Amino acid sequence: MPSQSNATPTNVDRNAEPVLDALRLALGNEEVLTGASASEKYLKDWSGEKADTLLAVVRPRNTEEVSRVMAACHAQRWPVVPQGGLTGLAGGAVPSGNAVALSLERMSGIIEVDRASATMTVWAGTPLQTIQEAARDAGFFFALDLGARGSCQIGGNIATNAGGNRVIRYGMTRDLVLGLEVVMPDGTVMSMMNKMVKNNAGPDLKHLFIGTEGTMGVISKAVLRLHPGVTGANTALVALTGFDAVVKLLRYAQQRLSGLVSAFEVMWPDYYAAATTAGGIRAPLAAGYPVYVLMDMQGASPDEDAARFESVLEHAFAQGWALDAAVAQSHADAEDFWALRDSIGEMLQAFAPTINFDVSFPISRIGDCVERLRAVMVAQFPDIPAMFFGHVGDGNVHIVVGPVPDDGRKTEHAIEKAFYTVTRDLEGSVSAEHGIGLHKKDWLEYSRNEAEIALIKSVKRAIDPHNIMNPGKILSL
Amino acid sequence: MPSQSNATPTNVDRNAEPVLDALRLALGNEEVLTGASASEKYLKDWSGEKADTLLAVVRPRNTEEVSRVMAACHAQRWPVVPQGGLTGLAGGAVPSGNAVALSLERMSGIIEVDRASATMTVWAGTPLQTIQEAARDAGFFFALDLGARGSCQIGGNIATNAGGNRVIRYGMTRDLVLGLEVVMPDGTVMSMMNKMVKNNAGPDLKHLFIGTEGTMGVISKAVLRLHPGVTGANTALVALTGFDAVVKLLRYAQQRLSGLVSAFEVMWPDYYAAATTAGGIRAPLAAGYPVYVLMDMQGASPDEDAARFESVLEHAFAQGWALDAAVAQSHADAEDFWALRDSIGEMLQAFAPTINFDVSFPISRIGDCVERLRAVMVAQFPDIPAMFFGHVGDGNVHIVVGPVPDDGRKTEHAIEKAFYTVTRDLEGSVSAEHGIGLHKKDWLEYSRNEAEIALIKSVKRAIDPHNIMNPGKILSL
Repeated sequence: MPSQSNATPTNVDRNAEPVLDALRLALGNEEVLTGASASEKYLKDWSGEKADTLLAVVRPRNTEEVSRVMAACHAQRWPVVPQGGLTGLAGGAVPSGNAVALSLERMSGIIEVDRASATMTVWAGTPLQTIQEAARDAGFFFALDLGARGSCQIGGNIATNAGGNRVIRYGMTRDLVLGLEVVMPDGTVMSMMNKMVKNNAGPDLKHLFIGTEGTMGVISKAVLRLHPGVTGANTALVALTGFDAVVKLLRYAQQRLSGLVSAFEVMWPDYYAAATTAGGIRAPLAAGYPVYVLMDMQGASPDEDAARFESVLEHAFAQGWALDAAVAQSHADAEDFWALRDSIGEMLQAFAPTINFDVSFPISRIGDCVERLRAVMVAQFPDIPAMFFGHVGDGNVHIVVGPVPDDGRKTEHAIEKAFYTVTRDLEGSVSAEHGIGLHKKDWLEYSRNEAEIALIKSVKRAIDPHNIMNPGKILSL
Repeated sequence: MPSQSNATPTNVDRNAEPVLDALRLALGNEEVLTGASASEKYLKDWSGEKADTLLAVVRPRNTEEVSRVMAACHAQRWPVVPQGGLTGLAGGAVPSGNAVALSLERMSGIIEVDRASATMTVWAGTPLQTIQEAARDAGFFFALDLGARGSCQIGGNIATNAGGNRVIRYGMTRDLVLGLEVVMPDGTVMSMMNKMVKNNAGPDLKHLFIGTEGTMGVISKAVLRLHPGVTGANTALVALTGFDAVVKLLRYAQQRLSGLVSAFEVMWPDYYAAATTAGGIRAPLAAGYPVYVLMDMQGASPDEDAARFESVLEHAFAQGWALDAAVAQSHADAEDFWALRDSIGEMLQAFAPTINFDVSFPISRIGDCVERLRAVMVAQFPDIPAMFFGHVGDGNVHIVVGPVPDDGRKTEHAIEKAFYTVTRDLEGSVSAEHGIGLHKKDWLEYSRNEAEIALIKSVKRAIDPHNIMNPGKILSL
């Protein structure tokens, strides 16, 4: 939902020549793209949010050039929006206020793999997939993974604290970052290129930049944490008696497999039915069970691990939690099972226009939450399908609602308000992994209280007193 | 080293009656201890730092009382030092500026264990050991562990981002905290009692309070993350050919055991010899090998895991990394092996007075670092023993140097300066896990650059404009 009440200054009536001159002086004439050469690409991301205008696109080649851009814009008090792969789902990289778009796309590449330290140092513009492959080539594993892996850039992943399927085992992007280099709003280069897991020499400043969606500075480099290489996975799809059984299986599997569960994806029957019909995916298990779990265990020795993995399923049947199960016998089987989750793209098209919720809850409340949200739909919007699924091992529930009638966003807003009200009541989060950006600004206060919002503003003002750093994202000052 | 140049105002000449009146009004007369009733205990911690004076000790019983204390001191611009178990090793909880000591000792206890969500909610004054035991009773594992477990409090662990032996697998305290309740310097109660692993609804504010040593607010409650229960461990002591072999064993074991290595402690021969002589510990392996590793693998099924664990050792011999090894055959064996590391208390007494370094380095540089530091000792301080050991899996090296001659800290300062200069050259940290407090203030700039220090100050001023919240710790404004 675009924010009306929180609009930031548009700057369209301001004389932009001084800032354009300063940028050309800083980077050279050719490097400051305006008009038609600042193409459509830089106006939008994957969220559906789109800007009408931007002042210019700059594509610095190194940290020094980023610093010059920021210093120029700081001197002219002109807004800057940092841009990575533009795959965000909350509009965090969409220009606002006729901003200068600072694209990191030319600052791409792996600077160093330090095998002894299990770290990789990269430029912020490096695509995630490049990093995953370089880690694998070095015998390690970079644990972040999400659908946009080929297009998204690590700087954007860090700025949005990206999540994905493996958070249950390896944590969010925040947990995979050891060090950062950041260019501050005034152009100061701040090097915090720490390589150590243990470093308590004063406050850990990198958390001011991770997950703050480019509102505090421009991430230019990062030191990433690598995990031990994995050689394979054990995968199963399990039908269960209900959400209580899901939680019991989760806790038992985590204990029996010593925390090696690397994905625990739950699909409610509405989602499962849609994936196997609209999504066109082969159904490994019959439709209509109360709930389904797709479980992965990643290890260094899948053959040795298989017996332990299967003993978890045996236990689930013996306890009466499981009603049916399929264990992948091959990599192709596992890919088929995962296609159920990965078919979300096709499903979004089949049910378009959709509202895509990305909420999280204490795991103990997810069963209650799904029942309440479903009751909202039945009572108030009985003709609109809603499909529930999520990375339940980390509390994350996704809900696709659609098709939503074309009534000037009236129904969309009503459903959002009803869902986020339940989210607030159950002490959940209105954004589990996508961030706030522009898209969820109006709902921020459903998850954050007045004292928290005051603190966010006060830190922002201390770091970016002229509010030029991606202004209007997350909240308006 | 106590800081001379950075002294904070002493407040000893200021009229303290208004603040004492306000505190008595807030808590009741009986609850504000002054003079002899504010005992010696609150003037010092385990670092050796000690205050001459404090104004009063207050021991609030709940968040509302903490809030009233802070509001009273904020109105009077009087400094407050939050105190937990007073087991810190950097002086972070030692009163400065004739502060009011705010002890959390009465705010102790477990509020909730949420088994489905794998979380525990606790008061900040709860001892670590109480939390460990409650987690175990509920079938979970709380992964933080350190020698002071019986005395330290979780609020202090969080404020100092405590480390310990298991960081290689479970991370620092920061990684075990999901939510916090904090009382701000002006008395505002900030609830951030998040229970979710995934929550990107705006900046993750808890990192402003974790590891900032009480300079930003008073932690009153926390939501902790629980890990799956462990039922046992496999333990070995291995003698290796040198530090290169240590790194090879670390990387191989991590890969082969899928990241289940839960401790990887390195002891150089000087430490090993001292532990088995001065420390009085039985030597499971002969003295004089180039380097020793104590390795733990924690799992849910130690019997099944044993074969895999032993295959790691076989590989280490086959590759020529290992020269000798002993595998614990019983819990008593494992405790004997761990006594080598835990004898540090006796060793500190045997070599007193000592300097105790707590530094960290990129793992790839630890071999080089130890050689350089040893060269410093041989060249400049040939008569003073130095013993090297550490949690090398996470980059942390401890060095005990002593006995140091009683020459008005001249030798102490010279050794510190030489060691921290090497630390700076190798891009290490002057404090891996103990924090800065008062003790290492003068060395902070050896690990943090000018831009970082300016940012720390700017955030501190935004959050605590009157500098009443544990002033003078980490750095002086």
